[in-house]
Amino acid sequence: MKRIAIAIHGGASQDSDFIRQNKTGYEEGLKAAVQAGYAVLQKGGSAIDAVERAVNCLEDNPLFNAGRGSALNNQGKVEMDAAIMDGENLKAGAVAMVKSVKNPISLAKKVLEKTSHVLLCGYGALKLAKEAGIVLEEDQYFITGHQLDEFKQANLEETGDILLKKQVHGTVGAVALDEYGNIAAATSTGGTPNSLPGRVGDSCMIGAGCYADNRTCAISATGDGEYIITGVIANTISLYTELTGKNLQEACDYVIKERNKDTPGDMGVISINKNGEIGITFNCERMHRAWIDTNGNMEARIYK
Amino acid sequence: MKRIAIAIHGGASQDSDFIRQNKTGYEEGLKAAVQAGYAVLQKGGSAIDAVERAVNCLEDNPLFNAGRGSALNNQGKVEMDAAIMDGENLKAGAVAMVKSVKNPISLAKKVLEKTSHVLLCGYGALKLAKEAGIVLEEDQYFITGHQLDEFKQANLEETGDILLKKQVHGTVGAVALDEYGNIAAATSTGGTPNSLPGRVGDSCMIGAGCYADNRTCAISATGDGEYIITGVIANTISLYTELTGKNLQEACDYVIKERNKDTPGDMGVISINKNGEIGITFNCERMHRAWIDTNGNMEARIYK
Repeated sequence: MKRIAIAIHGGASQDSDFIRQNKTGYEEGLKAAVQAGYAVLQKGGSAIDAVERAVNCLEDNPLFNAGRGSALNNQGKVEMDAAIMDGENLKAGAVAMVKSVKNPISLAKKVLEKTSHVLLCGYGALKLAKEAGIVLEEDQYFITGHQLDEFKQANLEETGDILLKKQVHGTVGAVALDEYGNIAAATSTGGTPNSLPGRVGDSCMIGAGCYADNRTCAISATGDGEYIITGVIANTISLYTELTGKNLQEACDYVIKERNKDTPGDMGVISINKNGEIGITFNCERMHRAWIDTNGNMEARIYK
Repeated sequence: MKRIAIAIHGGASQDSDFIRQNKTGYEEGLKAAVQAGYAVLQKGGSAIDAVERAVNCLEDNPLFNAGRGSALNNQGKVEMDAAIMDGENLKAGAVAMVKSVKNPISLAKKVLEKTSHVLLCGYGALKLAKEAGIVLEEDQYFITGHQLDEFKQANLEETGDILLKKQVHGTVGAVALDEYGNIAAATSTGGTPNSLPGRVGDSCMIGAGCYADNRTCAISATGDGEYIITGVIANTISLYTELTGKNLQEACDYVIKERNKDTPGDMGVISINKNGEIGITFNCERMHRAWIDTNGNMEARIYK
């Protein structure tokens, strides 16, 4: 039997009415995405193609805050970030502050494949999207009723002071192991309702919200992005396994729950290594997550 | 005697005619910048104010590729990135793809001080600059004859294929220890001649080109930014000292010369810790650098 496995997440934070009301829809969306990524692996596809496929499903699902269903910033605009990394060769691609792009993770993969850069931002990312034939959509495609309501409510209630202090949530991601022993990670986000314009978070930052190295592990993080950046969470988990020899679950638990126990932010991570071991940790009420392990068993969970 | 110290850099790469022709100017610029930062520390100023001041000097000096003297991208535009981090509280601020801002490192410091975000990009960063009263300049202020010549030459010679494969250089930075035992790091860059528009490099990425934690060290990196991102260089040096107990110079040497010995890019780092120990390593022909140690001794060097 081929040793393949995949894990995905759909964000981590405290619970909400919207999450409780849509529990079934979220569970179905998680299962569909993890199965779509797993199908790529079953057909002999690469880990990087599998994480792209799983994230595409979450980006296309309006329940998740990435691609369609992205949050609106305080200008009423969608600005999305994404990153992807290949553990075989440490190549990475990322995009920040992009609009119009249906699947930001697929544009991040084009940055990896077609340029020597890692991160393209704003109009430069959009220029590559057009040259590479990436699917674009009108602004209205991205905006769901739920996010429009959130924006209108927040825009009424939140003062400039609140905006300057606001923490930012909402991300999807995937990690996978393919039959060739390679691992990959992908992370994609639409940001948060009513954020400052131009804010770029951890999702597109290699080492923070996304990292992959065959020698250690592949990781996608989610939660309060600013603390994931300053904690350099993904690289810290990877290097912790490298330098201490701890296993992946221990490393995730240590970095999120011990090393950052005084960090006042929500954080969650999914991770995988070349043996197909999966590590998942979060410090808040819910992390939307699903995985299919090396025995082919699928799980999808929202709460602890 | 107060235990204070500072180190700065003005980029690392292979040698060039321009560098050789301006050797004296570069040495004078390095000395002026390191002395300006040191003067802040001598007056009881904080490490974060000292690194801002030193980097301001390098940004204002047209010989260095940051602020005035920034490189032009392949659209003939200046786009600058910068990041600053305070080792006392792990707070960080960064800006990417900014134009018009005379001193991007000072805008990064405003992101740290005035918002809960870490990175603001493009028009969002410019909006904060205007609200915070940051000094703006006309486009012509930033463009020097040298960079205009480089742009014209590269724009004639470089095909789309070359642009997609091009590696990016040119950064300034500083690290400092103040009398209160706090350390800080700052990095600022103008990118490279004829780069793809929207390219964002390591300089504004916490954990890659900039990192500071009182418990370990403060680091500013320079060189081929894409490899500094995928190697998550600054955080890796910091965590290596934390987990192995090696000293700072050993950690810098290990990460740049051993762990990344097969990485085909130029890299250099400056670093400092709470004892005032300074670690400097680079793997290429030159790194413009200067420091004043805890005994008050100043050095300025370009080659090995």
